[in-house]
Amino acid sequence: MADLVPVMSVGELEAFMEREFPQMRMGADTTTIEAVGPGFARLRLGFSERNLRPGGTISGPAMMALADYAMYAAVLAHIGPVGLAVTTSLHIDFMRRPAQADILAEARLLKLGRALAVGAIEMWQEGGEGPVAHASCTYSIPPR
Amino acid sequence: MADLVPVMSVGELEAFMEREFPQMRMGADTTTIEAVGPGFARLRLGFSERNLRPGGTISGPAMMALADYAMYAAVLAHIGPVGLAVTTSLHIDFMRRPAQADILAEARLLKLGRALAVGAIEMWQEGGEGPVAHASCTYSIPPR
Amino acid sequence: MADLVPVMSVGELEAFMEREFPQMRMGADTTTIEAVGPGFARLRLGFSERNLRPGGTISGPAMMALADYAMYAAVLAHIGPVGLAVTTSLHIDFMRRPAQADILAEARLLKLGRALAVGAIEMWQEGGEGPVAHASCTYSIPPR
Amino acid sequence: MADLVPVMSVGELEAFMEREFPQMRMGADTTTIEAVGPGFARLRLGFSERNLRPGGTISGPAMMALADYAMYAAVLAHIGPVGLAVTTSLHIDFMRRPAQADILAEARLLKLGRALAVGAIEMWQEGGEGPVAHASCTYSIPPR
Repeated sequence: MADLVPVMSVGELEAFMEREFPQMRMGADTTTIEAVGPGFARLRLGFSERNLRPGGTISGPAMMALADYAMYAAVLAHIGPVGLAVTTSLHIDFMRRPAQADILAEARLLKLGRALAVGAIEMWQEGGEGPVAHASCTYSIPPR
Repeated sequence: MADLVPVMSVGELEAFMEREFPQMRMGADTTTIEAVGPGFARLRLGFSERNLRPGGTISGPAMMALADYAMYAAVLAHIGPVGLAVTTSLHIDFMRRPAQADILAEARLLKLGRALAVGAIEMWQEGGEGPVAHASCTYSIPPR
Repeated sequence: MADLVPVMSVGELEAFMEREFPQMRMGADTTTIEAVGPGFARLRLGFSERNLRPGGTISGPAMMALADYAMYAAVLAHIGPVGLAVTTSLHIDFMRRPAQADILAEARLLKLGRALAVGAIEMWQEGGEGPVAHASCTYSIPPR
Repeated sequence: MADLVPVMSVGELEAFMEREFPQMRMGADTTTIEAVGPGFARLRLGFSERNLRPGGTISGPAMMALADYAMYAAVLAHIGPVGLAVTTSLHIDFMRRPAQADILAEARLLKLGRALAVGAIEMWQEGGEGPVAHASCTYSIPPR
């Protein structure tokens, strides 16, 4: 997938998300897009009390929302600002109990077809021993 | 799995969730537990502007949070109030664009072992043509 | 999905599979279609030494092939003999170690759209305590 | 996961598989282990008429068996020859129609815990435009 070239910058993505998806930030309201590049987008879920669950760990739904959002950012970065892309499936494995700190997510496009985009999303924490979660996600994308 | 018998009532579950998981309701703050029975729990995600995404449809992350929460309720209903059960994986397929209305979710336990619980969660809307989403979920449960 | 009506009989499906997919039976060569009905197909994987793995249990790949084949049968039963339907994703959870006996699989269609079909497949053994495996599967289907 | 160190060589793995799992090769009988290294194993599914499905493409079940087998090889390479590790779940996305040629699979361990191992498996063909499939897999591993 080395031939993928982003068509939106981080700033353009952030502005689009802010304008079109204020609710998208639900459960992820401290999420920022850190970088986009050929075939990928990297996001950061800022640590917040709101994302905690008992035991003091970051909740699964917060990480699922992060994975979905990272994939959405990766797709839009490569096809342009299309609000109508929708998730058709998501699979996530949780590997390690996250510390009370930010989580980084990098979505990597495995396919960007006419109708479907497929990607893998890895999530980790700075200084951690390995990934906290790994997801696969498919988006249905509108005809271009 | 006909031999499964709930050990918590709807009221006990709701009280436990309210006390231990105020944050769990993130992205699902209008969710109520409607019923528990042998091997299952049924929840309702009340419609809310907050759960919308562009195009006026209910967001994927709101449904993922609902699936996870429904499975959690089904597990706790059968093992008792154990805050330390954690999701180890979740898979979800989105089948139909939901209408702007409540979503019902029924989690059915497929296995309730010593260390892992596995369940299937179907989500639908009253009057809809078929399920809006279907999920599989695995929880790691503490030794009893 | 109560409005689904099969357009192929068990005999027609078996004949089509035999003619077009001799290789499909790989890892499942003792598989028979037992029933088709509105929205579902039920198959039987006959017990065979070939499907065993160490410890004397039926191998995961044999059950994955069975799930995929059951979904394929359910889709074809409802859209007619179209060789070009292809699996786009499959998720499977293994719940119980199978006994050395036949495995039954029922694929239930959750969506049969223009381009995609989604189904859930439950696998069990006669006299068993609960399902041995549960799968979700998506097929891409050609324009009709 | 940089701290992972293989404890079996390619030759030791091949000999163990040959001795203990003659049936494991079902649907993958032309599969060889090409390399093992810190946290990964790489396998090759040799092209065979047997793995074809209509349309002349390599069957989904052949790739699922390959993903499962690659993960098994990666796990054993790091924990030693333990026949009793079993798959608890597998998720696979098929991205591109494979050409009639070998398929390579690299399984990368994301977690190697006391009871569970989680990995991601990427599958591709030499000269191809991108991955043909991507899988996630969880193995339950016996106490060591």
